[in-house]
Formats: sequence, C-alpha cells, structure tokens
Amino acid sequence: MASVLITGFEPYAGLASNPSAEIAAALDGMEISGCKIVGRLLPVDFARYHDRLKALLDEVAPALYIGFGLAMGEDMIRIERFGVNLADFDIPDNAGASPRGRAIEPEGPDARASTLPSAAIRAALLEAGIPARFSNSAGSYLCNATLYSALGLCAARGTPCGFIHLPYASEQVAALLREGNGPLNGESAAPSLPIEMMVAAAEIVLQVSAAGLPTA
Amino acid sequence: MASVLITGFEPYAGLASNPSAEIAAALDGMEISGCKIVGRLLPVDFARYHDRLKALLDEVAPALYIGFGLAMGEDMIRIERFGVNLADFDIPDNAGASPRGRAIEPEGPDARASTLPSAAIRAALLEAGIPARFSNSAGSYLCNATLYSALGLCAARGTPCGFIHLPYASEQVAALLREGNGPLNGESAAPSLPIEMMVAAAEIVLQVSAAGLPTA
Amino acid sequence: MASVLITGFEPYAGLASNPSAEIAAALDGMEISGCKIVGRLLPVDFARYHDRLKALLDEVAPALYIGFGLAMGEDMIRIERFGVNLADFDIPDNAGASPRGRAIEPEGPDARASTLPSAAIRAALLEAGIPARFSNSAGSYLCNATLYSALGLCAARGTPCGFIHLPYASEQVAALLREGNGPLNGESAAPSLPIEMMVAAAEIVLQVSAAGLPTA
Amino acid sequence: MASVLITGFEPYAGLASNPSAEIAAALDGMEISGCKIVGRLLPVDFARYHDRLKALLDEVAPALYIGFGLAMGEDMIRIERFGVNLADFDIPDNAGASPRGRAIEPEGPDARASTLPSAAIRAALLEAGIPARFSNSAGSYLCNATLYSALGLCAARGTPCGFIHLPYASEQVAALLREGNGPLNGESAAPSLPIEMMVAAAEIVLQVSAAGLPTA
Repeated sequence: MASVLITGFEPYAGLASNPSAEIAAALDGMEISGCKIVGRLLPVDFARYHDRLKALLDEVAPALYIGFGLAMGEDMIRIERFGVNLADFDIPDNAGASPRGRAIEPEGPDARASTLPSAAIRAALLEAGIPARFSNSAGSYLCNATLYSALGLCAARGTPCGFIHLPYASEQVAALLREGNGPLNGESAAPSLPIEMMVAAAEIVLQVSAAGLPTA
Repeated sequence: MASVLITGFEPYAGLASNPSAEIAAALDGMEISGCKIVGRLLPVDFARYHDRLKALLDEVAPALYIGFGLAMGEDMIRIERFGVNLADFDIPDNAGASPRGRAIEPEGPDARASTLPSAAIRAALLEAGIPARFSNSAGSYLCNATLYSALGLCAARGTPCGFIHLPYASEQVAALLREGNGPLNGESAAPSLPIEMMVAAAEIVLQVSAAGLPTA
Repeated sequence: MASVLITGFEPYAGLASNPSAEIAAALDGMEISGCKIVGRLLPVDFARYHDRLKALLDEVAPALYIGFGLAMGEDMIRIERFGVNLADFDIPDNAGASPRGRAIEPEGPDARASTLPSAAIRAALLEAGIPARFSNSAGSYLCNATLYSALGLCAARGTPCGFIHLPYASEQVAALLREGNGPLNGESAAPSLPIEMMVAAAEIVLQVSAAGLPTA
Repeated sequence: MASVLITGFEPYAGLASNPSAEIAAALDGMEISGCKIVGRLLPVDFARYHDRLKALLDEVAPALYIGFGLAMGEDMIRIERFGVNLADFDIPDNAGASPRGRAIEPEGPDARASTLPSAAIRAALLEAGIPARFSNSAGSYLCNATLYSALGLCAARGTPCGFIHLPYASEQVAALLREGNGPLNGESAAPSLPIEMMVAAAEIVLQVSAAGLPTA
C-alpha cells in the first residue's frame, strides 16, 4: 500500500499546543483512499527542520507529502500555493534563531508552486461545509521554509507536495482565554475552528490529493 | 415545569440563513436544567420586533429569556452586557427601514445592563473549549434593540434576561464562498464556528443561566 | 472668554507615547470658536483619575469638556456615544490595578449618553477628509470610566461632555516597528493616522462642539 | 538626466479614485536624487496592462521602475518582495475580465523577487515616521501581474524594479463614508493614510531606490 506523509509542527511562540501536531497525530495510521497515512512532527527549528524532513521523506518514501502548520489569526483552512526562497522570522524559533532576510537555498529559484490540486481541495472543503481559501503566501517563517524545501525535495522524486495552514483550534483559544495570559485578550480577535472540524478537513485534503495518484 | 424562552432572528442582509434561527430551532422543545426550552423566531423588522417579543413573553411567561443573534465578523461567542437606547441601522431591516440616531424608548434610560450571570457563562463556555468574550456593545441594530426592549419588559416581570451574539456558522461561510456571490471574498476575513459547536454553546448558556432560577 | 477643557492620557501599556496626550498639549492655549482651550493630562490610574478630573472641572469651570484617549487597533476617529457603569480591565493600569467586573458608581445608572453633537461632529470630520465613525462602546478601561464619570460630573453643571477615541499615531507605529519590540510585529495590523491629522480632527471636534454653546 | 518610471492604476472596483494614480500624478516631473520622475497610469485591464507597461518602459527607458497600487484594507505602506506567476481575480477588472487560476506567463518561473533595496526602503520610511511593512504576496490581481511582468521586462534591461502597495487614502475613506454607499460601512475597518503622507512615502521610496543607481 502506498504511503502518504503528513507533518505537523511542535508548539511554538509560547503556546501549549499546535493544531497541526494534533492533526498529524490523529491521522497517523489511518487509511485514506487506499493509502496509509504516516503522521510525523517537525521541529520549529530553522537549523533542523530540513534534515528531519529529508529523513522522513527518505524513510517513508511517500506517494504524496502534505505539511500542516498553524497560522495565528487565520480564520479558515488555507491552501498555500507558493513557497518563497526567504526566511524572515518575526519571532524566534524554538532554538532561539531569528534569520532575517535570508535565502533558504542561495542558488534556489525565487519561489516554488504547490503541486497539489488546490482548486479541487477547496471545492471539496466548501462542499463539506468547511470554510477554505487559497493563499499566495505561506509567510516567511518555518511553514514557508518547509513548503519551499519540500517542493524541492519532492520534485526530484516526482512526489506531489503542498502545505495547508490552519487557524487556532477553538479549544486552544478557549484555554488561552481561560488562563488570561496567552497572546490573546478579551479585546483581540482570535478566530478558530474546532479541532474536530480541522481533522475532518485534513481527511478531505488527503482524499482529494490522493485521488490523483497513480494506483499503488 | 418552568419555561425558558429563547429567540433567534430571520435571515437578513441578503444571507440565506441565520445561525441564531438554527439554534432556536435546534433547542426548541429540549429540557435543560429542569426547564422546557421554547425556541422562537423574531422578525428583522424594527416596526414589528417589539410587539412580537412582548407577545412571546406574554404567551410563554418564561422564567428566563435569552435572545440570540448573528454578529457578522465576530469570531467567538459574545456575551452582551448592555443594551443601549439607540437604533442606528447601517443596513436596512427586512422591511426596508433604516432608523438613524433614533431612541428606542424616548423616555427610557440610556442603557440597560444584562441580568444574566455573564462571568459564570463565559467561564463555563471556556471550560467546555468554546471561545467566548464579553461585549459592552450589542451594536445599534435589531439585536441591540431586542436586548434593550427585552430588559425593559423582563424587569417588570422579574425575569432574568440577556443576549448572546454568534459568529457566522462555518457551514454558512462555506456556502457563501462556494457561491462566490456572498458578502465575502477570498481576501476578506470571515471567522466562523460550526453550528454544532454553537448549539452546544447555547445549551451551556442556558444551563448556567437556569441554574440560578428559583426552583420551579 | 469661556474655557473648554480637554484631556489626554499618559502613555500606558508599555507604550512610549499617547496621541491623546500630544493632542491635549498641542491644543492647550489655543483659541477655538471664541473659547480658550485648556489641555490637561489624566493619569492612567483607576484610583486617581476621578479626583483629578473633578479637580480640573472645578478649576477650569469649562463651558465644554471633551476627553481624548487612544484605542489601540482603531483605524479612524471614533466618536463615543455611551459610557457604561463598568470597570473591567484587560491590562493593568499604570499603578498595577486591574478591576474586573466592577461598577464605577455602585448606585449609578447602567450607562450615560454623550451630550456632544455627535452627528454634526462626524459630518464635519468627513467633510474635512478625515475618516470618523460612531461608537456605542468606549470599552471598559479608563477611557470609558472617564466618559462615564465626566458625564455624571458635567450633568450637574449643565456642561456638554463627550469622549473621542483616537487610533495610534502613524509616527508611534513607525517607532514601534523600528524598535521591533513593541506590541506590534510585521504580520499584525496596526492602523494609524498621522498626529497632524489627529490634531486637525480635534480642532474640528472642538469647533463643532463649541458652536452650540451659549455665547460666553 | 536619468529617468525613473513610476506607475499608478486607474480607479477600479467602483471606487471614484485610486491613491496610486494620485501619487503618480503628484510625482510626475519631479526631480529626485538626480533623476527625473515620469509618473504614468496603467489600466486595470488584464488584457492591456502588459502592452502599456512594455510601451512605457520602451519609451522612457528608465534607470528604475516602481509600480504603485492600492491594497484595500491594508493599514500601512507595503513593500512587495515577490510577484507570482498567477492571475486569480476575486473581482472583475475594468473590462469585466476575471481570470481564475491562470498563469501570467505559461513558461515563466513560479515567481520573481523584487530587485529594490526593500530593507533600506523600510528603514527610511520608519525613520521618517511612516509605518511600513514587508509583504511576501502582492495578491493575484493586477498589482501582482504588473510586478511579475515588470520584473521579467526589467531583468532583460538590467533595470531595478519593484512594487509598493498603498492603503486607502484617508480622504477617500472619508468620502466613501460621507456617501454611505461605498464598500465600507460604519462597522467595518477601513484603515487609511492621508494622501500627503503617501506622497512623502513615495518620495522616500524613490530616494532610497535611486541612491543605488549608477550615476547617470
């Protein structure tokens, strides 16, 4: 059976959890569209994410790779269309590094386009009652770096590859508000979706993306 | 058995649905904390909402009244603390009326404070993993008018009374995006929560509010 | 010559400046519509603002009082229409106090309405090319407390009274971004207007408000 | 004397004006850093912008080209770092065209990076008290198409090239609010900067960008 690799990220920015990690854990081991899902975690660490990602791709040899990450302040599922050759961190990663204005691959192209069927993914999410939008920028933090690097690594293998940004989990926002010491306060916007809806969204993303794979 | 009246609103502003109407329908007939829930609909009509509300209060003679309404652009459950003596409509109601800068009750007080246990409601929602905030303004449209009028009508009866604003339903945002002709586009923010989570939130609001009622 | 009292606030929340303080300083001593402007500073201190405000009203005996304050995240001039009887601080004041869910005047009304000519003020600002909106909530921090208290103190004197919220000053946002350590980062919204435009706005607010005064 | 070409866009989306057109007009004919500024207008027309842009570059043979455009909802000066090979219009252009998911140059690279000194531009704007941010996405409307196409056309000539997004002009927002029939209403955010501050910003952008040019 073909394998599909998905990754989430560790918590970062002082948050206690990361919905992308919960999704990777929830889907790990599932079978979707005849493929076995392998859900793994990437470090929020600019010095280490690339080697970890490459090792996972070598180990799993997936027929499809999709990264998931948190976009604080986003209000729906966000289908990334481009990764750019830029690391420019507004907040330090978990190892304390803050690269600014730095190329990810000094000799790489300015950007690489997602090879997922973005339009079909969005249509299927909306059909299922889950708000989703396209995005032309995955930012310049580790999510973008992962997308840019993965597109390079996967192109050599002929593996479809893309990235999905998630809003805060509703449960996470509720916990932050309860503590009263999160990055949020009663005045600020903190859009979210329940983790259950985001897991359902991830399954749909995988079904649509895997549908186009050659039969394993 | 004591009755609890809740109201939702008709769709308005060209929308095909209103999550507050779905919540009133979903909870109608339920028993919560030993009370029977009566879920009804209010017209989005400045000339008619007051008489309809008064008739419902007369008919149901509830031990508790809570209005629900949609706050487009809101990102969590919003517990209103005040209704003000002002009708100032940015968009026309369903009968085409747009009162501007007009007192709801020319001789009424400037504002009336909710008599719900707001802090306990918010704590219970957060405990259940549902984001919620306090609000000091229910706007100046029909939601505020309903809260202001209801607080006047209920004070005379000694009935606790308040108002809860809801974000868009996720399913509603997905439908609007699918049609591509709603008030939203791919660029704009449209925070939402699934209708299922909002129904759960309404149940919690009712449980906490009814807990303080004298035994029926 | 009649006097008009305006107040701004000290910086707070770790900010180095407060546009309302700059406006009070810029207009202090000016003559507008035949009135002498007295611009003073209020402390961001729940325990002290009331006495300072009362002392200023006693000392200046103004024909008109208008408070100014910063609303972080606001994008235009905001004309407050109500002050509510609630102190509920999301961030501590400059003395470290964070009253939560507390009445400002235990025996006071739920809210008091501004006695400024709000519609005429907004029309004049828009005519001058300055974006302005009405607001039905001045929050539940010191700005609201000042408005609520001032409306009570001024009613007894027959003095028109209101409150204007300001966005960040553009120069202030630029300084915060330059330092890279403010409450803002490259991703977050931080709407602003230049201090020069806000001073012009304040002059218009005063002209329109003073126009209705009995000739001194 | 070397020439510098700047372009603004026609009004679109039902707006009566476009701050980028006002800036191009205001700077046309100025001398900045020893260069003559040529300010011209581009049509909001996907079928025509490219030929008009190419004709202008041929005619003016500039030592530097910078496009300006409006980003509705933006709150500061936005320095674009990438143009992507995608036209995906949420609203029709002025000729009624709405390309969706379409490559600008079927054989072109996924994206092209701005060749302006972005970091120096931002530093100079902040130093002058003007809020500015970097952006990794110019969207997928005509602004992005102009940036992507211009980077291709200018690369062949060795001409530095980039794009600056502007917020609404404050005067424009005030006019829209006065009419009460714009894309805005009293509830919605509409951040803006005065046209005067945006003209000053454009001069700084040109000074910093022209500083790096070989002496003409």
